Amino acid sequence: METIRISRIMQETSKQYIQKGKTIGFVPTMGALHRGHISLVKRARNENDIVTASIFVNPIQFGPKEDFDSYPKDMEGDMEKLQKEGVDILFMPDNKNMYGERLSTYINVREISDKLCGAFRPGHFTGVATAVCKLFNIVKPSRAYFGQKDFQQTVVIRRMVQDMNMDVELVICPTIREKDGLAMSSRNIYLSSNEKASAVVIYGTLLSASQLIKSGGSNPADVKKHMINKLMSNPLVKEIQYAGVYDMDTLEEMAEFKKENLLAIAVKIGNTRLIDNMLVEL
Amino acid sequence: METIRISRIMQETSKQYIQKGKTIGFVPTMGALHRGHISLVKRARNENDIVTASIFVNPIQFGPKEDFDSYPKDMEGDMEKLQKEGVDILFMPDNKNMYGERLSTYINVREISDKLCGAFRPGHFTGVATAVCKLFNIVKPSRAYFGQKDFQQTVVIRRMVQDMNMDVELVICPTIREKDGLAMSSRNIYLSSNEKASAVVIYGTLLSASQLIKSGGSNPADVKKHMINKLMSNPLVKEIQYAGVYDMDTLEEMAEFKKENLLAIAVKIGNTRLIDNMLVEL
Repeated sequence: METIRISRIMQETSKQYIQKGKTIGFVPTMGALHRGHISLVKRARNENDIVTASIFVNPIQFGPKEDFDSYPKDMEGDMEKLQKEGVDILFMPDNKNMYGERLSTYINVREISDKLCGAFRPGHFTGVATAVCKLFNIVKPSRAYFGQKDFQQTVVIRRMVQDMNMDVELVICPTIREKDGLAMSSRNIYLSSNEKASAVVIYGTLLSASQLIKSGGSNPADVKKHMINKLMSNPLVKEIQYAGVYDMDTLEEMAEFKKENLLAIAVKIGNTRLIDNMLVEL
Repeated sequence: METIRISRIMQETSKQYIQKGKTIGFVPTMGALHRGHISLVKRARNENDIVTASIFVNPIQFGPKEDFDSYPKDMEGDMEKLQKEGVDILFMPDNKNMYGERLSTYINVREISDKLCGAFRPGHFTGVATAVCKLFNIVKPSRAYFGQKDFQQTVVIRRMVQDMNMDVELVICPTIREKDGLAMSSRNIYLSSNEKASAVVIYGTLLSASQLIKSGGSNPADVKKHMINKLMSNPLVKEIQYAGVYDMDTLEEMAEFKKENLLAIAVKIGNTRLIDNMLVEL
């Protein structure tokens, strides 16, 4: 595995592979890799000639009171895992190489960036879209791999790719979960063992809401009430930021079920913000 | 010359040339081609294997009260001129192909987009940057050619290209002028013959301001006064939107001269808005 830290060199390297007709699979990460990330790498490895992973904790997607400074890091463990999965190139730029002295250009995906998580994390998806655009231009991937766990992120990036005619295929991979159902997240490390045990209520809520939808005779407003009640019943759930049934393209709350329905939740358990989602087909 | 109207086909065509190791020179235009555009095409022809020109009057860079509907068009003349210059591909998408049913994603180059012309044309440079980003992703140029006449546009695009790690070399070409000095512009067609004769005051003002700077003993504030007085002395100059000495990177008014100094002017002559500029080296 080759480690590249300079954008210009990464770009030049990718160009050489493209000129040779190679496909490049790209897995952008913020490090602290778990089995969710690894599932993306495995899929990229299966589908492409070259696999490039990046580790970059992107400062511009964190709010001033968020956990940029304390974001989990495990550089040695990460590199070992990527090497083991047969990653060809690890792109690991520092802030200065990514953003230089100043950044003036921002990509704003209007409307959908302000829904759900965006309402609680102003500027977050502008930071995500801007960084992902830069990474795509540097790495020049044929395919890029993202986890469904960050559903809104996949919607924002898909819209950006379509709107800006970016020549990359997005591959959205299923959420990977602990045995008890808790969605894998680098931030799970923040949870105490009590909190972690409680956090299973999120997946439980998604599952029972999904059953409620599939059983028929319900509507999105009832399902939302059911979800909130179930989450509230857990004493360690401190705050419900959102919970309900949403349109998977616009991320707006739905008045009636459609063919595909997005169940999505963001809660705080202790001081840790956790999100999860599920697509329910009718 | 091949004419392509569909983005996906344009992108696929460019990819094939890139895989063959060809360089692509790109001249994006809004049509109504004059000698300024042709100078860009000639330079692109000299420097690249493949030359692609585009004609697309970009609706999102026009304000609601601006001249989108009446913007000059000369499709037959344009195609003849491009053919004559040995252009390989003319990319000519329609609005629907460029923007589809909706556009959610916008590129904002903060601060410099709000100076000079941006102060009088809110949203203009967001529209320019967004369209140019799309065109770059579709055409995949090695080099892209722009005229210095739209100086702020070149600054905004350069910043976008740097900030977003876009893999394209920008080539800024000198302003082409009528014999009397009037900068070539598709909008000159709006001028009556009286107005056109008066418009030479713009270039005259740039020239005399340049001499004032080079003669020494002056300062930017004095030069600005000189420029405004000279422009005001012409009875057909209806409005001076800006005139003065600016930093060529930040586009801010300068307090003291530097090595390179940007003289820039925007005026209305009759109902026609005209811009021009000159770089003065000390």
